[in-house]
Amino acid sequence: MKTLLTLSYDGTNYAGWQVQENAVTVQQILNEALARLFSRGAVRTIGGSRTDAGVHASDQKCLILSPERHNIPLQNLPHAINAFLPQDIRVMSAELVVDDFHPLRMPCIKTYAYRVYNALIVPPKHRLYTAHERRRLNVGAMQTAASFFVGKFDFVGFSSAGSSAMTTVREVYSCNISKEGEIITLEISGNGFLYNMVRIIAGTLVHVGLGKIMPEGIPAIIRSRRRELAGPTMPASGLELFKVVYAGC
Amino acid sequence: MKTLLTLSYDGTNYAGWQVQENAVTVQQILNEALARLFSRGAVRTIGGSRTDAGVHASDQKCLILSPERHNIPLQNLPHAINAFLPQDIRVMSAELVVDDFHPLRMPCIKTYAYRVYNALIVPPKHRLYTAHERRRLNVGAMQTAASFFVGKFDFVGFSSAGSSAMTTVREVYSCNISKEGEIITLEISGNGFLYNMVRIIAGTLVHVGLGKIMPEGIPAIIRSRRRELAGPTMPASGLELFKVVYAGC
Repeated sequence: MKTLLTLSYDGTNYAGWQVQENAVTVQQILNEALARLFSRGAVRTIGGSRTDAGVHASDQKCLILSPERHNIPLQNLPHAINAFLPQDIRVMSAELVVDDFHPLRMPCIKTYAYRVYNALIVPPKHRLYTAHERRRLNVGAMQTAASFFVGKFDFVGFSSAGSSAMTTVREVYSCNISKEGEIITLEISGNGFLYNMVRIIAGTLVHVGLGKIMPEGIPAIIRSRRRELAGPTMPASGLELFKVVYAGC
Repeated sequence: MKTLLTLSYDGTNYAGWQVQENAVTVQQILNEALARLFSRGAVRTIGGSRTDAGVHASDQKCLILSPERHNIPLQNLPHAINAFLPQDIRVMSAELVVDDFHPLRMPCIKTYAYRVYNALIVPPKHRLYTAHERRRLNVGAMQTAASFFVGKFDFVGFSSAGSSAMTTVREVYSCNISKEGEIITLEISGNGFLYNMVRIIAGTLVHVGLGKIMPEGIPAIIRSRRRELAGPTMPASGLELFKVVYAGC
């Protein structure tokens, strides 16, 4: 059995999840904390989702590849790791998974949330966790448009270059828009997302909310596979990896 | 007529509202922004509530005393000031008030919110805006206890030394506890609050939630006027100046 961690983090101050040279990432900080906790030089982990710079997560999964064994009881592990982590990264829970579990290859349902603060001025406590749109958005039109993203499509027109994915076909299980106070939230679930896909879908729905794209025009935009027909890539601050559920877990 | 501003701020990085020597405060940053906007060396402002270090506000009022006149249209003033402010301080709106308006002396109803994250681990996005209590709190008992704070009492036992108030009698108009997800919120309205009064009431209600104080014991604790019978002063991070309504405004 191996150990799978669930992490929550505020991505504001990190260059994304994945370890990279010359930038501080969440995975690097986690690996350093694990190395100190286990008194090991060589810790290896593998994350479930490669969140980008500035993107938040409330349900990132991370498998500890090595050390495979440790003598800390599972229920004590989150607190033990958190003692070595900064306040903007927390291990929320730990569980055991089978030896051949691979967080990137196991089928799963991922849900992302994208939040837009739709008012003239953003109150400071929302500034790190929303994108700002000062022009009034038509929420009803956005709700209608969102429903057209549900299904199995080639989403290549809703992705940025730089993806290493084998196929650009993805299945979206649900795509909903809701509004609470001044915050409009897109919640989208699927079996996986292309590079920047959620941020481009969010930008397309904002353009629908502004009347620049008609809701009924969405299927043709998807079919066109042309990036330039979709809306802009929205800022990282509004995006949160919200929920990850592995099949059979 | 004078100009009254409504401000929202994240108090995390400030030594409170009021200008002081050797520490960065919200009012100081605002005064500097106004001085740059109006090209004046001497800007004077007066705030409606002296929030402490680390305390947040979504409805701080601030009167511009000098310059008394400026040539910026009222509806443009928030954006004009915000251009000179950091992202964690925002002017939300501006209005005109009569010349003898004084934000500290006018009768008003103030509402504070105090938020406690009641779970083993605080997700990072809530870390700056809640206090943390890992032991399970009895919300029903806290709700019962909260109702006993409503009324006109001498709250001296629920205040810290250092207050310059003439009297320690205050009237609490409403005091409610609610829970949403893992966040327990105290919302308390009154005609004014003593130094640290909301944070001590919050700490007393947390002790009720832990079973250390019985809800029915609250009236006797208030009557005793003894600080040591009340609960602890809770951390600043959970406190927010939520709403201020002036009589006749």
